[in-house]
Amino acid sequence: MATVTEKQYIDPKITLVGAGPGDPDLISIKGVNALKTANVILYDALVDERLLDYAPQESIKVYVGNPSGDENFSQGVVNQLMVDYALNFGHVVRLKGGDLFVFGRGYEELDYAASYSIETAIIPGISSAISIPGLQGIPVTHSGSSESLWILSGTDSKGNLSTELRDAARSSATVVVLLGFDRLAEIVAIYQEIGKGGLPTAVIQNGSMTNEKTAIGLVNTIIETAEEKGIDNTGPVLLVFGATVELHHDFQRIKQFFESSF
Amino acid sequence: MATVTEKQYIDPKITLVGAGPGDPDLISIKGVNALKTANVILYDALVDERLLDYAPQESIKVYVGNPSGDENFSQGVVNQLMVDYALNFGHVVRLKGGDLFVFGRGYEELDYAASYSIETAIIPGISSAISIPGLQGIPVTHSGSSESLWILSGTDSKGNLSTELRDAARSSATVVVLLGFDRLAEIVAIYQEIGKGGLPTAVIQNGSMTNEKTAIGLVNTIIETAEEKGIDNTGPVLLVFGATVELHHDFQRIKQFFESSF
Repeated sequence: MATVTEKQYIDPKITLVGAGPGDPDLISIKGVNALKTANVILYDALVDERLLDYAPQESIKVYVGNPSGDENFSQGVVNQLMVDYALNFGHVVRLKGGDLFVFGRGYEELDYAASYSIETAIIPGISSAISIPGLQGIPVTHSGSSESLWILSGTDSKGNLSTELRDAARSSATVVVLLGFDRLAEIVAIYQEIGKGGLPTAVIQNGSMTNEKTAIGLVNTIIETAEEKGIDNTGPVLLVFGATVELHHDFQRIKQFFESSF
Repeated sequence: MATVTEKQYIDPKITLVGAGPGDPDLISIKGVNALKTANVILYDALVDERLLDYAPQESIKVYVGNPSGDENFSQGVVNQLMVDYALNFGHVVRLKGGDLFVFGRGYEELDYAASYSIETAIIPGISSAISIPGLQGIPVTHSGSSESLWILSGTDSKGNLSTELRDAARSSATVVVLLGFDRLAEIVAIYQEIGKGGLPTAVIQNGSMTNEKTAIGLVNTIIETAEEKGIDNTGPVLLVFGATVELHHDFQRIKQFFESSF
């Protein structure tokens, strides 16, 4: 346990840092610089622990669980830990997987810190929603193929299937769904109902990490393909629906297979 | 001009690197590592030139203009330069402002490189569409306020106002428009037509850079406010429409002003 000998000089500060989609080298230079001056780091389950090596050896490293629903680390608990550590130890870096503001609850943490008049700073991260498809060779927009991107959560703040998914499915945007793997069958049904069962679709687990798994197919086949690829809920999963998925190198092979089979 | 003495050993490679929204410290560690091994860097107008200092002194630095419409550097010219330099000098880093795939034409460049069988790699950047509002204290999603994000370009690939803007305006998503400042009056008219003139709105120029300018208001007032703040087309401008804009610290003051005025 670290000790503070000159408590009177403590200058509380909270820096929110987005760690990026998974690969630890995708954090920003600015994020690394913040870690180097941290007295305390609060990090969640989506963060690669190798990032903690940038912090001073004597800094306090606190694991705060899975952001999408760990009973032991509710948002209220994380907020309170963040403030308590800042008041007692100085510079807290709140290191979060992905970016901070796409379902990242970043604003809630800033708001809570502000309610204690603690100075805050924001260092954005690379968003999984855009970078993970991109790293797979699926551009979220592509001239003449998809000219916008709609990012949703599978589940709304009340725990229901997002009501916006139906509008998103009808739109011509590339649709990226985070936190939606549990809802995949329901989402597939929505696309099928509106006659889009043939739309190219991707499911990616642990994107940008060494244990990445990718399923490429059509709305009508994606559940089966995701199962074949062993995709499950043990790591973050992202769904992509849209014409640009056909630019993935696996897609042409899949298309030929379907054309010869039916 | 650099010279190559042992041409037979050249191993052509092209790495696409997203430089992030503007602040040079928002590039990733992986992006910096790519720059350190570059023989040639092709960089565009949105990239901070200080990033070139990471590259070896003897590397060739080539400016390729403004990606959103410089006659001298069309996409075809950039593609060809990229391939020619890779074949003649080895590792080309194509350093692009923002991320690579949100209207970044990243796929077109990868595809062109692949047509020459040149090895490619992708290093995503921090997307302006998410990070620039976030740095201003406007989360693109916020529980109970906006639960999805729709990112569009103001202009479609044919140069017209994006036809998707009308659907986006009707949706409950936070709407972020890139490359849309020239179209602001038309977009405002769309929101007004559907009765959303009172929706919180932000216009941000040169986000994350020292010369950042921000206008916060309502759909009905944003054109005037952007003009007052001196926002123009000399640097990248981003438009944000949605309830989360009211979380910006300036918004309460603006709201009080309107409530007392009308």
